[in-house]
This record gives sequence, C-alpha cells and structure tokens, in this order.
Amino acid sequence: MRIAVLLFDGFTTLDAIGPYETLSRLPEAETVFIAKERGPVRGDQGSLALVADRTLAEVTDPDIVLVPGGPGSDLAMRDETILDWLRSADATSTWTTSVCTGSLVLAAAGLLTGRRATSHWLALDTLEGFGARSTGERVVFDGKYVTAAGVSSGIDMGLSLLGRIAGDTFAQTIQLLTEYDPEPPYDAGSPDKAPAEIVAALRNEHATVFRA
Amino acid sequence: MRIAVLLFDGFTTLDAIGPYETLSRLPEAETVFIAKERGPVRGDQGSLALVADRTLAEVTDPDIVLVPGGPGSDLAMRDETILDWLRSADATSTWTTSVCTGSLVLAAAGLLTGRRATSHWLALDTLEGFGARSTGERVVFDGKYVTAAGVSSGIDMGLSLLGRIAGDTFAQTIQLLTEYDPEPPYDAGSPDKAPAEIVAALRNEHATVFRA
Repeated sequence: MRIAVLLFDGFTTLDAIGPYETLSRLPEAETVFIAKERGPVRGDQGSLALVADRTLAEVTDPDIVLVPGGPGSDLAMRDETILDWLRSADATSTWTTSVCTGSLVLAAAGLLTGRRATSHWLALDTLEGFGARSTGERVVFDGKYVTAAGVSSGIDMGLSLLGRIAGDTFAQTIQLLTEYDPEPPYDAGSPDKAPAEIVAALRNEHATVFRA
Repeated sequence: MRIAVLLFDGFTTLDAIGPYETLSRLPEAETVFIAKERGPVRGDQGSLALVADRTLAEVTDPDIVLVPGGPGSDLAMRDETILDWLRSADATSTWTTSVCTGSLVLAAAGLLTGRRATSHWLALDTLEGFGARSTGERVVFDGKYVTAAGVSSGIDMGLSLLGRIAGDTFAQTIQLLTEYDPEPPYDAGSPDKAPAEIVAALRNEHATVFRA
C-alpha cells in the first residue's frame, strides 16, 4: 500500500498531518511526501517546512493519493504539472483523497465532476462551481473519492478510510493509540455552531481567499 | 510572542502540528521549529521530516515552549543538551507545554516535580515515577505548565491555550477556521471507551516503549 501525500507551497500543515498520522500506520504502508521538486516545502504560516522526499515524476502509481488544502491550493489548482500528475495517479489509484481546499485541486483536475464531495466550509460554493455536488458533511465517500471538510477533518477522514481498508478493529486501535477522544474547549467548529459574528468575520476576511 | 517547537528524532508529527496549527495563528506570533542541529528531523514513522530552522542555541528566550512526544522521547529525556535547554528556556518562558510523552521530557528535566500533569495514557505511570502528579485529564494547566494527553490532544490544548492568551472569541475563530468540529467514526479514543481487547493489545505491544 503506497501512500503519496502531495505538498505545494502554502499548504496547511494539519491538512496533511491529520490523515498521515493514521494512514501511515497501515500495515506495510509506504508513505511518501512528494512535490514538484525534492526538498523543503513551506506551509501557509511560513514558519514550518515539510520535506518532500520524492518528486511527482518519481511516484507514478500510489494506491492512495492525499491532497491537502490551504491558501496555496489557489496556485496548485492552476498548476498543469500538478493537475497532470493527479490525473495520471488517479487513473490507477485505489483511493483519491483530499482535505480542505485540496478538493478544489482535485476538482480543477476534473476528478470530481458530478461527484458528491466536500471542502472547507468557506469553499463549498467554489467546489460547486467546478461541477462537484458539494455537501455539508465532514467526510464524504463517493466511490474511491474521499474528501474531507476544513483542516482538522482530515483526522476523521483518515480513521474512516483506515476502517474501510483494514477493518474497524485496526482503525479503533489507531484511534486509541493517537488518543483521539476530542474535547474541544468551545463548540464553535462549524458555521452552524459558532457565534454568528465570528462566522461573518471569517466570511468577510476570506472573501477572496477561497474563490477559484 | 515567540513560540519554540522542539524537534528530536522519532517525534510524533501530529503532537507538534496539532497545537502548531492553532498557536501559530496568534497575532504577531513568531513560531520557530528548533532542534540540536538545523535541518530535517525525521518523525516516528520514518516517512516524514520536518525542518528545524534554528538550533537550540539560537533560540534562548521563547515565550511558549512546546515539546511533542513520540517514541523518540525515550532518547530525548536522556539528552542533557535538550534537558539543559529546556531548563534554561523554562526559566523565562510564559508557558511551558507538552503533548503526549513530551511531558516525560519536561519531567526528566525536573520541571514537573510535584505538579499536576498528563501524558499519553500508556505513559501515566512513568510520569508519576518522575514525581509529577499524573491525572487522567486530556489537558492539564498547572500554573504556566500545560500538558496534553496522547497525540491528538494537542489540538485541544492549543485551543485552550489560545483562549487564555488571546480570549475566547479569537480561539473560537481559529476553531472555526480549522473547522474543528470532530466526528470520530468510532468512540474508541480513550482506554475507558475502547474495546477491552484493544486496550490490552496496546498495553502489551507498548509495554516497554512508554517506560523511562
């Protein structure tokens, strides 16, 4: 089971690490972080770089493709090298997955047309604009396409996918090993639950960020 | 507000990234990943390296110290260079924090003696052995010392600490931005909730990993 995690400048680090932390523990999984060039790829905060150990060209047949989102997805979804790689990898993948605005990159590659999918709550309209049928769900399976909502939702996606691949007992084991028994100090994690003024402020602040 | 995230070989990546994703968004935060040497530091799965942009010696006065855990904490807690740096940084820090077995490293540096603290559920006895008063809580504040339980609990810690530092509205804003509205597909994230045979299997498998 070969897992390829795509990196690009300005990705959101937790988008990648949430599902990585669970999926990479699959028995005999070989996980590889890839980018257009080998070496450090800096995330959206600027203060952290993850290392891409291989180039896109070096990893042609992953079983699982994972695309994180983040502000950098805006450029990634216009990058023909990345889109071509995604189309090619998807042709033989068992699972093609994304977190947050990573689904916009998949959609820009034409892989989500007509499919049920999700994205960051601020990007759902844009996802619809690409011809996907966006849902308000946190994790969406449509055949082999698995998309997760914003940032932290990739943890839930990773565990769900683990269950499909390796069974409930294995997924529960990894949930316990990573002590995923969430106790958020607030109940403000979705636009339906957060105070209206916070939802409005983020809609205003990010009005252009999540547009294609 | 200067935030230093300590890296060492064999750390668990989500331990570091969970709280990083929230704390690094503090207004005017300057976050820096540090290690004994600059450059890539490989996590516990071997398939991912994060880049340490500065050495320990280059970052002497962080406001927030964050220590992740992972299998590598076993060596980190015996590394006098790391322990000396922690004691020195702690002398002037506003917050000294850890996730998972990062608390064992803090404890080995003598910083948690007599304090209420937590760690990965498999490491609570070891934490007690260092003279801390371990609790079963997910996030523990004892003065400026903030410790989180296993791996994913660092997300909860980060949001709680954000609230203390920048207020509830800011913390809720970051919770909504990172869409932290968890929906685990199973309810097996703590030893009290997981099937007994899974708890027993992990206790057996990791019998020596979490011992000092």
